[in-house]
Amino acid sequence: MSNPVLVEVTRGDLVESRHRGALAILDADGASVVTLGDVARPVYPRSAVKALQALPLVESGAAEALDYAPAELALACSSHNGEPVHVNAARVMLMKAGLDEDALECGPQWPRLEADRRALHLAGEEPSPLHNNCSGKHAGFLGLARVMGAQTRGYVKADHPVQQEIRAVLEAMTGAAHGQDVCGIDGCSIPTFAVPLTGLARAFAVFATGEGLEAGRAGACQTLYEACTANPHMVAGTGRFCTDVMTAFGDRVFVKTGAEGVFCGAIPELGLGIALKCDDGGTRAAEAMMAGVISALLEADEDQAAVLKGFNGAPVATRLGVVAGHVRTVDGFAQMVRT
Amino acid sequence: MSNPVLVEVTRGDLVESRHRGALAILDADGASVVTLGDVARPVYPRSAVKALQALPLVESGAAEALDYAPAELALACSSHNGEPVHVNAARVMLMKAGLDEDALECGPQWPRLEADRRALHLAGEEPSPLHNNCSGKHAGFLGLARVMGAQTRGYVKADHPVQQEIRAVLEAMTGAAHGQDVCGIDGCSIPTFAVPLTGLARAFAVFATGEGLEAGRAGACQTLYEACTANPHMVAGTGRFCTDVMTAFGDRVFVKTGAEGVFCGAIPELGLGIALKCDDGGTRAAEAMMAGVISALLEADEDQAAVLKGFNGAPVATRLGVVAGHVRTVDGFAQMVRT
Repeated sequence: MSNPVLVEVTRGDLVESRHRGALAILDADGASVVTLGDVARPVYPRSAVKALQALPLVESGAAEALDYAPAELALACSSHNGEPVHVNAARVMLMKAGLDEDALECGPQWPRLEADRRALHLAGEEPSPLHNNCSGKHAGFLGLARVMGAQTRGYVKADHPVQQEIRAVLEAMTGAAHGQDVCGIDGCSIPTFAVPLTGLARAFAVFATGEGLEAGRAGACQTLYEACTANPHMVAGTGRFCTDVMTAFGDRVFVKTGAEGVFCGAIPELGLGIALKCDDGGTRAAEAMMAGVISALLEADEDQAAVLKGFNGAPVATRLGVVAGHVRTVDGFAQMVRT
Repeated sequence: MSNPVLVEVTRGDLVESRHRGALAILDADGASVVTLGDVARPVYPRSAVKALQALPLVESGAAEALDYAPAELALACSSHNGEPVHVNAARVMLMKAGLDEDALECGPQWPRLEADRRALHLAGEEPSPLHNNCSGKHAGFLGLARVMGAQTRGYVKADHPVQQEIRAVLEAMTGAAHGQDVCGIDGCSIPTFAVPLTGLARAFAVFATGEGLEAGRAGACQTLYEACTANPHMVAGTGRFCTDVMTAFGDRVFVKTGAEGVFCGAIPELGLGIALKCDDGGTRAAEAMMAGVISALLEADEDQAAVLKGFNGAPVATRLGVVAGHVRTVDGFAQMVRT
């Protein structure tokens, strides 16, 4: 079965490249509102479920015990640029748990922005695990391990109590079994479990509305939802989709990207969760799709529309800035999403 | 019509992402040896035809008049990393034509390797057009303009004599009309004309064998073929597919990548030209496909096989270097190519 072409990249009068994908929009009861393509095939959500992976940290009371601020909780849900504000917040989260960067098991990563790379070069430094886009998530894992009284070393392993807690929450939220047969290793060394897009979409509808959850988990969802939408710069950073869209829409929209073309999101006023994957793993296409979904489902003011157009209708430019083409969803995409 | 999945990216036991594409292998008479997918659809070849775009420079005698060395001719066919050796060679090419980097109209680009970025940062410098991966090609265009007695300014425009010469050669070599209807602007500001993969494959079979060409053009093809295969580091650089494969195979294989998942190549001992495009523009998939084609068509020794395996079977690793999956052509790909 072949998923539909959902995004085209144009150059001149021609379509230069095509991205296929699948999309699921569900409510918290698990009712499908829209599905495009094969939404039953298990998909590794990668970083798109970081907010769900942070639930045990909040629900257990560990975040409160460690006095994590909302901006720090947003960082726990982030794939950040490794800007100084992100690095510093991750360091503070570790300090609050009595730890430092040596406890991180995510590996080092160069910061995303050239200015931050320059700063490292001028200081004669290499990137540290604090610069890893997942350092906030890992700091949260370590905080949880400390409050649980678990060993911190090996917190990335599937059989560690922290990962077991996370797995249980992910299974409950997505309704999908998280077995060894659908388990891969994520880029930051933790397990990632493949889940159908329908399960992911439902999970985010529940995350954003709290519907059907017992009070403790509903409160944790609300705390993380508010932390992310109130601190969008902490969720990604300068020039990034998640940051720009949540800055523009405030608490009306939650979005979170994952590697290999995955995107999850929620629009609580409509009671909807969204999950999509670009077949080929293309981030530009996943961003165009998610921007297309949001414009199809929500009235956007001029500024909000401009932000969405920057991703669905993004210019393909020459190195001198001349527009040579565009990245955009296919004709009729909005109608497909509104059906 | 839907092109076949040719490359899969695995993680754990699952396929995480899928790349579709089309592939044409032809001889110099234009006979199709293998076609997969829609090989009639026009495809912007982008940088994959740089060696053909350099033909007027050599055929006109301009390269000889300017005393361009083989390594400089290889740079004229390159998409380079912006390493010092590339930047210096581009500067020398311009000097030989009585010009400097101010004549370049390709725009600036950061070097690809972190070490070269570091050097710029430590020197307090920004990248220049010499660092642009196309600077060698542009230096060659400028050299040709000077020897032709044409104005150098505006040499990137479709109506400039240099671009007109290149268009005529591309039409002759590919057998495809290069009209306004298939013209886009490339990232370095020059025109790029969409051509069916069959036309591109035939062009490279002709390029590598000289079959059917009059002596002047055949000689220019041979000069450029030898320049590239004898100076593979100048065609791309450290860690790059084109450099590594041509280093391993010597003059038995010519390969050249283009943006948006295009690859062209030739195997003269088999009399074959190769052209492929990954539908979604993915470079990792185009590289896996081209490596898969070469392994299917040529006996490879252990070192050559290891180089190809680095691209077709490339590990997907965590930031700590643990192998989480692979990028590889689909089962049966070699059989499809050998048919």
